[in-house]
Amino acid sequence: MAITVVGSVAFDSIETPAGRREHCLGGAATYFSLSASFFTDVRVIAVVGEDFGRRQQAVFEARNIDTLGIEHTAGKSFFWEGSYLENLNEAKTHITDLNVFATFEPKIPDAYRDSEFLFLANIDPVLQRRVRLSLPDVKLVAGDTMNYWINGHRPALLEVLKGLDILLINDTEAKMLAENNNLVQAARAVMAMGPRLLVVKHGEFGATLFHRSTPESDGAHTFRAPALPLEEVVDPTGAGDSFAGGFFGYLAAQPKLTASALRRAMFYGSVMGSFACERFGTERLQALTREEIDERFNQFRELTHLD
Amino acid sequence: MAITVVGSVAFDSIETPAGRREHCLGGAATYFSLSASFFTDVRVIAVVGEDFGRRQQAVFEARNIDTLGIEHTAGKSFFWEGSYLENLNEAKTHITDLNVFATFEPKIPDAYRDSEFLFLANIDPVLQRRVRLSLPDVKLVAGDTMNYWINGHRPALLEVLKGLDILLINDTEAKMLAENNNLVQAARAVMAMGPRLLVVKHGEFGATLFHRSTPESDGAHTFRAPALPLEEVVDPTGAGDSFAGGFFGYLAAQPKLTASALRRAMFYGSVMGSFACERFGTERLQALTREEIDERFNQFRELTHLD
Repeated sequence: MAITVVGSVAFDSIETPAGRREHCLGGAATYFSLSASFFTDVRVIAVVGEDFGRRQQAVFEARNIDTLGIEHTAGKSFFWEGSYLENLNEAKTHITDLNVFATFEPKIPDAYRDSEFLFLANIDPVLQRRVRLSLPDVKLVAGDTMNYWINGHRPALLEVLKGLDILLINDTEAKMLAENNNLVQAARAVMAMGPRLLVVKHGEFGATLFHRSTPESDGAHTFRAPALPLEEVVDPTGAGDSFAGGFFGYLAAQPKLTASALRRAMFYGSVMGSFACERFGTERLQALTREEIDERFNQFRELTHLD
Repeated sequence: MAITVVGSVAFDSIETPAGRREHCLGGAATYFSLSASFFTDVRVIAVVGEDFGRRQQAVFEARNIDTLGIEHTAGKSFFWEGSYLENLNEAKTHITDLNVFATFEPKIPDAYRDSEFLFLANIDPVLQRRVRLSLPDVKLVAGDTMNYWINGHRPALLEVLKGLDILLINDTEAKMLAENNNLVQAARAVMAMGPRLLVVKHGEFGATLFHRSTPESDGAHTFRAPALPLEEVVDPTGAGDSFAGGFFGYLAAQPKLTASALRRAMFYGSVMGSFACERFGTERLQALTREEIDERFNQFRELTHLD
């Protein structure tokens, strides 16, 4: 089943202990799409400037991603510059130039209207909500957000959360959103805001899936997927979006949203996140094969299973 | 098979967001023994002062722990006061009074000499080494250490590591010992110092077991056990020692050190660590039953297994 994703298609300049890359293709919607494209059809809604050319277009086409919804406009694409020199788990942002993204008005191609799955990547919650309302018939809606929106745009974000089935955020964001430092309590509070499923990403320690449940059921409604201890993390940029792409892409390809499908989706998310870190930008996702994905899936099972 | 453990039997005053307890029974050897006693026979080598009385003795006796090697001497027992008010993952130490521990000279009762398993809890590496050399015939030796010894007593610690089969430490300690910020690389460097197995504890994110291996085998020689996301962490004191007790206690009770036994031991370690956090000091371990342990073991399997 097709996923429509709305989010940023951008350029990043990244510095990590492994080196530096200038102006490489990035953005949440890019990582998400590339990752999800290994599992299902993906359609992108975004805006790019004149610096997005044939070379960037080819990256999407190579993975059969529908780019009809990528609007081309005068000016420069969204640009981010950041580094991970002191801490590979947390980017230090040097420059954020919204550029054409500052006036982004998502337009949904008619051909996208039969999408059954919608992913609202990390953008202004006002835009997330607008896209959500424009596609009222989708079967399952997942989304992401970040500290910036949690702290500064809370009312708009709360409106988005009401319309989400699944929210994917990291530990810090979950605790900040719930204003509670205990992860289990924070998860319950976040699910009370709307999403019935919450995926909390723990970086190098994997991710936890929480289901909405009664106060009594506690641990019984959680599932934890591991992350692979990596010999070298070259560039963590996009790991969370790649996780989301693997998770939601796998789910979209399943006939039913069963507990078992959700568990496997968590593993596939973790697998895709681990690949994303192995090279700069989207390099590893571009070179990836489905065979490698399934091989690593089995490695993850081996990593955590008793028998 | 019996485990002999050498380490501290102490009193702790602890403050956490859940409250405060004065002068409760603690110490690494105490947590380790209580935890391991659910799996095998445990014998303790430690020193206590006049403040260690019948009530404390009864805690060990209730779990059939052999206290013949606990030396009673004039003065006060080792005392620690700390808090976890800002961060439940890291204790802030207010007071450390070595008291009778300052002149501790471990003495090994003859009745302990047939122990096949030895655990060197976190104490001065000079003492760890002395005990190790006094029990040359043990089959398997595991140990713990901490930042203080890694930074300030490195040569003595390196001597201890040469005689260890298994080292159990946390992320920060592993990276500090290896002087390498990548966990996989750090693990390899630590194992080159002696231990053929390394357990790195990740607090609320479980623990990873590394086996010594060739540079090529990377992920194939690791195993990750989860931790249970807890509704409330009352007091994390002793969680690491309780993990060690569950891990090593389970191993000591197995006929052979197989890969499968090691995986289960990691799960039991994680299970015991999670119980330790549920109440202040050793309260939860004192009240625990083997039935509850196996129930939680199954919960942990459910938490991470795909099928």
